[in-house]
Amino acid sequence: MTLTSSATRVKTDRRRSDLCSAIEDELGGIMSGRALAAAPYGPGFARLWALAGENVLGGKFVRPLLLMEMYDALQEPGMRTDRHHSNRQTAISIAAAVELLHYAFLLHDDVIDGDLVRRGRPNLIGSLLTEAGLPRAGSQPGQQAILHWARTGGILMGDMLLAATHQAFARADLPHPLRLRLLDLLEHTIIETVAGEQLDVGLGDGVIAPELETILMMCGYKTATYTFELPLRAAAALAGAEPSTESVLATAGRHLGLAFQLQDDFLSTFGDPRQHGKDPFSDLREGKQTAIIAYARMTSAWPAIEPWFGRSELSGLQAEHVRRQLSDCGAEAFVQGLIREQLADFHEILRSHAANIPETARNVLIDLAAQLKGRQS
Amino acid sequence: MTLTSSATRVKTDRRRSDLCSAIEDELGGIMSGRALAAAPYGPGFARLWALAGENVLGGKFVRPLLLMEMYDALQEPGMRTDRHHSNRQTAISIAAAVELLHYAFLLHDDVIDGDLVRRGRPNLIGSLLTEAGLPRAGSQPGQQAILHWARTGGILMGDMLLAATHQAFARADLPHPLRLRLLDLLEHTIIETVAGEQLDVGLGDGVIAPELETILMMCGYKTATYTFELPLRAAAALAGAEPSTESVLATAGRHLGLAFQLQDDFLSTFGDPRQHGKDPFSDLREGKQTAIIAYARMTSAWPAIEPWFGRSELSGLQAEHVRRQLSDCGAEAFVQGLIREQLADFHEILRSHAANIPETARNVLIDLAAQLKGRQS
Repeated sequence: MTLTSSATRVKTDRRRSDLCSAIEDELGGIMSGRALAAAPYGPGFARLWALAGENVLGGKFVRPLLLMEMYDALQEPGMRTDRHHSNRQTAISIAAAVELLHYAFLLHDDVIDGDLVRRGRPNLIGSLLTEAGLPRAGSQPGQQAILHWARTGGILMGDMLLAATHQAFARADLPHPLRLRLLDLLEHTIIETVAGEQLDVGLGDGVIAPELETILMMCGYKTATYTFELPLRAAAALAGAEPSTESVLATAGRHLGLAFQLQDDFLSTFGDPRQHGKDPFSDLREGKQTAIIAYARMTSAWPAIEPWFGRSELSGLQAEHVRRQLSDCGAEAFVQGLIREQLADFHEILRSHAANIPETARNVLIDLAAQLKGRQS
Repeated sequence: MTLTSSATRVKTDRRRSDLCSAIEDELGGIMSGRALAAAPYGPGFARLWALAGENVLGGKFVRPLLLMEMYDALQEPGMRTDRHHSNRQTAISIAAAVELLHYAFLLHDDVIDGDLVRRGRPNLIGSLLTEAGLPRAGSQPGQQAILHWARTGGILMGDMLLAATHQAFARADLPHPLRLRLLDLLEHTIIETVAGEQLDVGLGDGVIAPELETILMMCGYKTATYTFELPLRAAAALAGAEPSTESVLATAGRHLGLAFQLQDDFLSTFGDPRQHGKDPFSDLREGKQTAIIAYARMTSAWPAIEPWFGRSELSGLQAEHVRRQLSDCGAEAFVQGLIREQLADFHEILRSHAANIPETARNVLIDLAAQLKGRQS
């Protein structure tokens, strides 16, 4: 038993590392090709592409890996023709494009949020800021001008990567009807993600009322759609799966995606900072509108919590007190219940549509759900 | 003579107004379709699409008109088959997509420049700002939060229109090789326009040195490429013209485009404000890096001009004095010379490649150049 499962793990790890290399090669080719083409437009433009290339290749490839794992899982066993090989290469190019889309969203998100750092390191904007601020010959621009230059770089690179994503979909070596099916999916994904981002910003800016329903809608749209639904549905389309399979994967992916997003918010507030490595109180200090807060707002505890919510100068002790209040009023248990519900719906979908999903594909999804269960960060 | 030319003018006007209606119908269909699809995502998202639709349909359609006029001019006379009709409809959809691209660029440009007004009316960001600031029930967000919300709307709508542009190109009802030719053109256009925008911002922020060569490069890339080269080359590709014709149109278009851009800068500083209706000194007050300034910087007059350049509090009298200095140092004549050079190159291209461009197509370009000559605003 132990032998088998450790052999399986080795096989899975090897497969995943092969996939990672293939995705990395594809992304490396795209980014270095563009960096080369950018050179004649001046050093600033070439540097923008070089920095973006480093950042894209430093990603974890969560979405393209999911796409390719599902794509492989949906293949008939023993299918090893030339046609299969060429199709798989196309799937890798679409998987790479999904990563470009992710990075384009991150860039515009960082511009919108004014962030200069991501996962503890300078993001593209932060790097541009540092480099433009380095002492050079001639007159030095002011700090405001440099920040403007750097943020503009974030907007423009996001635009070019959004364009590159579409170019990859539009050029995919596929029969035109299948290409159109993928273009529909891309269009749906972008509209829904942007709608989610607009809701998120509207909630943060106080322009949209923080109702629980709105917050849950935002959670699903802003990340679940492009992180789960897009890779799973693209994999189904590329593997030539039935529309019914694509639809089951989409629904299962949405439930998982929402569960992941709710858990993100949950861990940010109630998780162990030694595990997730983030400031445990940043959501409270920033006044982030989450399902936790939406629930608390409907309880009698809210008048005691509200004065502390969204205060950037909140001390650790004060924040711990607010967190205890959020727990006591039932918000902690409420969000845990929401996550359990999404997971139960997910498993119910898999059970009731067993006929529509091959065993191998179901295992990819179950592995994914298992990652959520054991997750502390 | 007078009769003929007035009959020709009536015919041209009727043709242009028919083209305008066809482009308007196509754009109206796209924008209202999206506004409808946006409704389920909440009123804020639907409003964003409705506002964008009003703005897009209020445009002058300069680029799609140029595309369609050149497309029609490149057709064999008497070609009136069903196939021709279907091709022309595809050309209209590409022309409409070029207008969407233009508006996407304008939106991100306005975000980058912090502009809330365009041609004397609130732009999309200005409209969102006003609407979010109107008194409503519940707590009112602060001015900074509303501005953030409005600018985010500009970024997100630009993203969606960039996506919509690509969708139109990718779905065009054309043989795949021709679709790829148009996708290449779109890619080239976006890279070059973004490179130009980055140069413009770098010059304005003082991150890039204001050399004359850099400024001329920026002028060509930032607007000439997508305003002239893109419509002309797309028309050639769609009309099935030889690559040599496409290449001549591209070169002629670049010269015209640069002439138009230089003339814009020229009129802004030396033109008659009663004609162009803009603040005649805004370029001086903003410290805009133009060819005029780059030339003046190389003359002995610069030390006397520099202290006044880029000072927002410059009075009308002081600005008039600076303008006279710019004229006296030869900058006015220098830029007029540059414009003449571009026009001479343009006419030389038409003359030396007469075999590659049909008479009708040449006339479209000569009409365009004539607009530049008589232009006061």
